[in-house]
Amino acid sequence: MSKIKDHRVFLSVEEAPTSWYNMQADLPSPIAPSLHPVTKKPLQKEDLSAIFASALIAQENSPERYIEIPEEIRQLYAAYRPSPLSRATALEKLLDTPAKIYYKYEGQNPAGSHKMNTALAQAYYNKLEGIKRLATETGAGQWGCALSIAANLFDIECAVYMVRVSYEQKPYRRSFMECYGASVIPSPSYLTEAGRSVLRPDPASNGSLGIAISEAVEDALSREDTNYCLGSVLNHVALHQTIIGEEALRQMAKAGDFPDVVIGCHGGGSNFAGISFPFMREKLSGRKVRIIASEPSACPTLTRGVYAYDYADNAMLTPITMMYTLGSNFMPPGIHSGGLRYHGASPIVSKLHHEGLMKARSYTQNQSFEAALTFARAENILPAPESSFAIKAAIDEALAAKEAGESRTILFCLSGNGLFDLSAYDAYRAGQLKDISYDEGLLRESLSALPKVEND
Amino acid sequence: MSKIKDHRVFLSVEEAPTSWYNMQADLPSPIAPSLHPVTKKPLQKEDLSAIFASALIAQENSPERYIEIPEEIRQLYAAYRPSPLSRATALEKLLDTPAKIYYKYEGQNPAGSHKMNTALAQAYYNKLEGIKRLATETGAGQWGCALSIAANLFDIECAVYMVRVSYEQKPYRRSFMECYGASVIPSPSYLTEAGRSVLRPDPASNGSLGIAISEAVEDALSREDTNYCLGSVLNHVALHQTIIGEEALRQMAKAGDFPDVVIGCHGGGSNFAGISFPFMREKLSGRKVRIIASEPSACPTLTRGVYAYDYADNAMLTPITMMYTLGSNFMPPGIHSGGLRYHGASPIVSKLHHEGLMKARSYTQNQSFEAALTFARAENILPAPESSFAIKAAIDEALAAKEAGESRTILFCLSGNGLFDLSAYDAYRAGQLKDISYDEGLLRESLSALPKVEND
Repeated sequence: MSKIKDHRVFLSVEEAPTSWYNMQADLPSPIAPSLHPVTKKPLQKEDLSAIFASALIAQENSPERYIEIPEEIRQLYAAYRPSPLSRATALEKLLDTPAKIYYKYEGQNPAGSHKMNTALAQAYYNKLEGIKRLATETGAGQWGCALSIAANLFDIECAVYMVRVSYEQKPYRRSFMECYGASVIPSPSYLTEAGRSVLRPDPASNGSLGIAISEAVEDALSREDTNYCLGSVLNHVALHQTIIGEEALRQMAKAGDFPDVVIGCHGGGSNFAGISFPFMREKLSGRKVRIIASEPSACPTLTRGVYAYDYADNAMLTPITMMYTLGSNFMPPGIHSGGLRYHGASPIVSKLHHEGLMKARSYTQNQSFEAALTFARAENILPAPESSFAIKAAIDEALAAKEAGESRTILFCLSGNGLFDLSAYDAYRAGQLKDISYDEGLLRESLSALPKVEND
Repeated sequence: MSKIKDHRVFLSVEEAPTSWYNMQADLPSPIAPSLHPVTKKPLQKEDLSAIFASALIAQENSPERYIEIPEEIRQLYAAYRPSPLSRATALEKLLDTPAKIYYKYEGQNPAGSHKMNTALAQAYYNKLEGIKRLATETGAGQWGCALSIAANLFDIECAVYMVRVSYEQKPYRRSFMECYGASVIPSPSYLTEAGRSVLRPDPASNGSLGIAISEAVEDALSREDTNYCLGSVLNHVALHQTIIGEEALRQMAKAGDFPDVVIGCHGGGSNFAGISFPFMREKLSGRKVRIIASEPSACPTLTRGVYAYDYADNAMLTPITMMYTLGSNFMPPGIHSGGLRYHGASPIVSKLHHEGLMKARSYTQNQSFEAALTFARAENILPAPESSFAIKAAIDEALAAKEAGESRTILFCLSGNGLFDLSAYDAYRAGQLKDISYDEGLLRESLSALPKVEND
């Protein structure tokens, strides 16, 4: 006789997806091959095997539509997944909108973000192949936290090169990783040539994600027992994250609903791929759904970048990849959504965007924080600054539906919580956040330095 | 055909308890009446109505065994409850114990601890009675965070007197409360006479929970539109927290199990009451179960305190209550489990302990942090320092079962997460945490200053 409504839609572990979805199988045409950073010839598996587990290399290039999730990973997922899909009824009421707003919340696991989904998979495959140590980079820290937990579970050492400005601004993130046994190194560091070459002219360098990637790759290249892990951009990372959208699809069906629009925030593309790729498959098979990436106007990879071959890192150690890019030397202003401060984008997302199958929008960080606090005060959860770009786009969609006087079903990914980002909230509430635009001159310069590639 | 095991036991919203359990109904004899702080005569309802909602005063003294949870509160609970009951299989394996360890995790809601359960109820009843503003104190900050969220939901102003040392050490907690619109005041403050009387001789006072309570009570007494809220100790707080144990009882039954031992950490008694009272009811009706409170040896209220009438606060503004106490002037060493640094205990818990129906144990903070990291590395969740005292007792029970070569079913409450307590983890990992014992002379002095009461 209870009148209590559960605004969350759950799946049991038995109802959980057992495969990841590989978007590559359904692309209108294959993505362009990545090129060797030195020879600029199409990359061979052997080129990658120095730093990646072979199972992950296979996934990176797989033509298979579905890839079965190993039982051991599904067992680890079962500690925190399926994640809830919630109806944001209080937010709907506050906005006085006829739209229905659903969000898939990925911030409830021990690492606090969606990064756990690929961290567990990457640690698992590396363990299988006898790897004893993993090197990675982290910007805002979500990825480093997730990989630290995953590496600890598989009894693998973990070295995290953390962008120095984050290392200093977010001591809790550093401490969290260390609790799980990781070594956290502020980047640029003197441990690598990539780091030293930055520190020589600029000993006080704040660092950047591009530099930290170079350091972690160099670390992995220099040690037999060590592989490299990346938390976004790559195809196998996007693959692992599709668990989010596969669950959401089943949960929407359980709720008797299907989204008119699916929204994710966009940095390198991992949570965006996760929530959107399964719905993109549905779109390509004829269902009607709009797909929107929401990014910071200070780092507008999809909205202002070009679709071209570029390096993923600063020191040009990584493969040259066809993607939307602002140029690997582009330095975005120091916005608080550190997870979105990346010059490039997932090659698959880039392809979909280039083909006109999705839209991208950009917002300022003040717009995103305003949306974040509106959401927090209605739905109680304090969002990660990154996720707030998705919230802003969702609110805009809900208000547009109200304006048009039409119903609309909106689904967005709330990719993480903001519990380690309270100094950013402080700055926003104090009116101290500046909406610094990127430097147009720097962007031009950065784009003019794109690598010359034969098959460009 | 899935071999995946879900180590969590869920209840649906339909299966959720619809009543709180009032332990008072089943006590061997009633708890002694609380006394007016000035007249020292038994307290009248009118004495409390200056600062408490009448519905909460009624619950404080209710003889009813079950009190129905209002639909509006059940709807708010349904945003994060029923909370999961998890089997700590990885921890069991690590300890190589035949014992089964279950934990009820209360740290997954937006406030990060069990405090939400009573915050929502207190805000609800105050709203019903037209209260526009709530004043409270917070030590570690969990309670202040929970009440800030609850007050925001009911559109009530919220003033939080936060113990100064916490205010300075935990800026994220302060910021979190402010995100939900609360005013956070470092205590002692110049806003109240209670605060000024401390600051006059000691302008740099670190503050204490007893002082902050005095300030919040004085604030509420001085304003018509303001009531006072307390996050622990009181009977109505313990009542609201029984949702934890009521759910756990149903979840254990779903798992086909019943605990041999139920464990909670103990400060003022709120999460301990929450997890244990429903099992105490079962014990009193003949089922076999041991119940254990785990507290810091630096603030050993149950293990070294006396059962006597005492004040709940420093300035002697609060009722005189029969309870285990270290004396209201007792100042525990500055351990990191701020939520357990309180001189008194819930009158009901005190009664149960005095009657020999439960046991209490104490541990040092280094013991608790060691247990916390062991748990985190096995089960991934980083526990609140407070909750870690329960983990330590659970690990001890599991090891005792191993020693005895017997099976044993252990249930403990993991009352909150430790995401805002990483500086304490840093200090522990650096070997900088001292296991300072309380001052025996101070304890003697504090106990000798207990109020003289006629019917003592």
